[in-house]
Amino acid sequence: MPIITLLTDFGTQDHYVAAMKGVILQIAPAATVVDITHEIAPQDVVRAAFVLRQIWNWYPPGTVHLAVVDPGVGSNRRIVAGRYAGQYVVAPDNGLISMVHHELRVEAMHVVDNRKYALANISATFHGRDIMAPAAAHLARGVAIRNFGPPTDHVEVLQMAAPQRRPDHGVTGQVLCADRFGNLITNITRHDLLPTFQHHREVKVYLGATCIGPLRTSYHEVAAGQPLALIGSSDHLEISVNCGNAAKALSPEPDARVEVR
Amino acid sequence: MPIITLLTDFGTQDHYVAAMKGVILQIAPAATVVDITHEIAPQDVVRAAFVLRQIWNWYPPGTVHLAVVDPGVGSNRRIVAGRYAGQYVVAPDNGLISMVHHELRVEAMHVVDNRKYALANISATFHGRDIMAPAAAHLARGVAIRNFGPPTDHVEVLQMAAPQRRPDHGVTGQVLCADRFGNLITNITRHDLLPTFQHHREVKVYLGATCIGPLRTSYHEVAAGQPLALIGSSDHLEISVNCGNAAKALSPEPDARVEVR
Amino acid sequence: MPIITLLTDFGTQDHYVAAMKGVILQIAPAATVVDITHEIAPQDVVRAAFVLRQIWNWYPPGTVHLAVVDPGVGSNRRIVAGRYAGQYVVAPDNGLISMVHHELRVEAMHVVDNRKYALANISATFHGRDIMAPAAAHLARGVAIRNFGPPTDHVEVLQMAAPQRRPDHGVTGQVLCADRFGNLITNITRHDLLPTFQHHREVKVYLGATCIGPLRTSYHEVAAGQPLALIGSSDHLEISVNCGNAAKALSPEPDARVEVR
Repeated sequence: MPIITLLTDFGTQDHYVAAMKGVILQIAPAATVVDITHEIAPQDVVRAAFVLRQIWNWYPPGTVHLAVVDPGVGSNRRIVAGRYAGQYVVAPDNGLISMVHHELRVEAMHVVDNRKYALANISATFHGRDIMAPAAAHLARGVAIRNFGPPTDHVEVLQMAAPQRRPDHGVTGQVLCADRFGNLITNITRHDLLPTFQHHREVKVYLGATCIGPLRTSYHEVAAGQPLALIGSSDHLEISVNCGNAAKALSPEPDARVEVR
Repeated sequence: MPIITLLTDFGTQDHYVAAMKGVILQIAPAATVVDITHEIAPQDVVRAAFVLRQIWNWYPPGTVHLAVVDPGVGSNRRIVAGRYAGQYVVAPDNGLISMVHHELRVEAMHVVDNRKYALANISATFHGRDIMAPAAAHLARGVAIRNFGPPTDHVEVLQMAAPQRRPDHGVTGQVLCADRFGNLITNITRHDLLPTFQHHREVKVYLGATCIGPLRTSYHEVAAGQPLALIGSSDHLEISVNCGNAAKALSPEPDARVEVR
Repeated sequence: MPIITLLTDFGTQDHYVAAMKGVILQIAPAATVVDITHEIAPQDVVRAAFVLRQIWNWYPPGTVHLAVVDPGVGSNRRIVAGRYAGQYVVAPDNGLISMVHHELRVEAMHVVDNRKYALANISATFHGRDIMAPAAAHLARGVAIRNFGPPTDHVEVLQMAAPQRRPDHGVTGQVLCADRFGNLITNITRHDLLPTFQHHREVKVYLGATCIGPLRTSYHEVAAGQPLALIGSSDHLEISVNCGNAAKALSPEPDARVEVR
């Protein structure tokens, strides 16, 4: 009973997600289909790349992640299928796999161009349904990844701002996004902060010029309504407001600078 | 492992969809339940009829589509169960089946009034849970459609604007709706345009008085931000903006006139 | 094939729900996972308690309800697992179980603190994923509830306004919430009104000072656009507008007073 996850920018108001699920269930009727999210903002490949990376560790080997944020549909962008840590991803080759590719070892990467595993009629505007959904379903059924097309050693990788080490062993990074609770998730991870902790017993976190305070371990170390910084459940540094919404309370610029020093 | 799909105007914030799923899973625990959408605007039977038609082709025979947009609940409107192309639909008889009924051959149509296949207590305001969900689950388990009630040769059909042939072999239609990406989906299908293509090598698409240009096959034939027209993945003529949102950029009137000539 | 339901305030835009589902499916791959809702407003424990109560009756014995609205994560609030009517709930002990606990007999209640049934690494901010999801999955697989931790005879119960009997045998209550259709759901149930009906053949329903009219049994007893009161599908008194939205049309104060007399 393989798992197939869906990650798209389709929303749930239209018939697009349901059409893909119908295609999948005709090919792999025993698959367990899981929605990651369909609320990626239209064409926001960067956010999709982040979410795909975030869910990867929680799924078992053999899972197939079908990720369709595809502004280039109908252009000459390729479709690829890759394997990392025993799990598969089928996606347009537009950077959506960037964060997974950057942090995990690629075990296989193939172009998806074998028409045998696509629908008989392929539209110009919905390859998610016509090529990627059938490919994901066939992968889940056990078709070997090498059968979908030629191997490739190149995959598009987004240039994403990496945190920078400061001369004082601190780290400078930026806000990546806000979640539903208004937590500001930064591009600084627990790993990035290890050298900082080796040199400093106490650090302070800054959002732009504003001092948020020391690194906390729980929201409840500050009073309700007060801001704080902690390493969140994704192992990224986050800036939050206890029982509140940091995105609204602090309203940072997009990509606002964050420093730990 | 039959598939039961759900298509409603219930939204996902309340307990209504979950109550229906509980009813279904008690009767048909092995069913695969798929959400089509619950974001139909309250009581928008026309949009639900369109979405139901759009997903039909992607599901296998035996699938049961439970479609509940039911402003007439508690009035004397009937509930019906129909079969088209080997798939079933259970819905209020208020026009929700119109587009499926218009384009596919009806194989069976029965009134649903056999209390044996309903819950013991039937509320006045939620027949989706008390009558239609149990009927869909029993259908999925293999109860014959004739057991749900008497056959009927009448089903409510919405008067929907049909595209008109022009003297120059062009076609005049209208905008049906916009999808999440702002693509304007019209009521003109690929089929409607076949005679046009037989008489004209080149056609232009007009939204009201505005010329959108020739018929394209891919978004990328125009520059980012430019409008275009193409036959979309639903085989309907669509007006889009490459990497943009046509509904916002062109803000057409509701039911705006579209011409291909 | 046990059912595990999910009820959270996580929304569906982030990776949080999908992370929990991955954890569940690794432990209980055959489970049927059902989303109740993820659109509880952040930290709105009262609304979650209402929704949990509303869906309880529609699920079979053995179902495990995983309910995570957890503003106290990382504080000393406990996590509990309870059994009512043969179904289980795993939730933070913050009042989320209040309505179920108030209306159903508790068959078992245990603190969840056995690390054997949690993930190896427990974050400070996401016990839904790290403790509650694994506990729910192990319960669904058949681990006995007593194995999760010591029994407890105390559970947090929210002080919720109860309807009051009037001297004239009427009832005074209040609006609890509005659903997607704008129906105003009150805290007055069918049960609360039984003595009223014994003393009065006709009653009138008031929202604040406004008379809504007699108790109806169907929306269609009034003209489209007109307000009405009826016992809704949840067995609660509701104030609605036929083919309209009572929350918008009547815009009551939060917790507005409702009287039946």
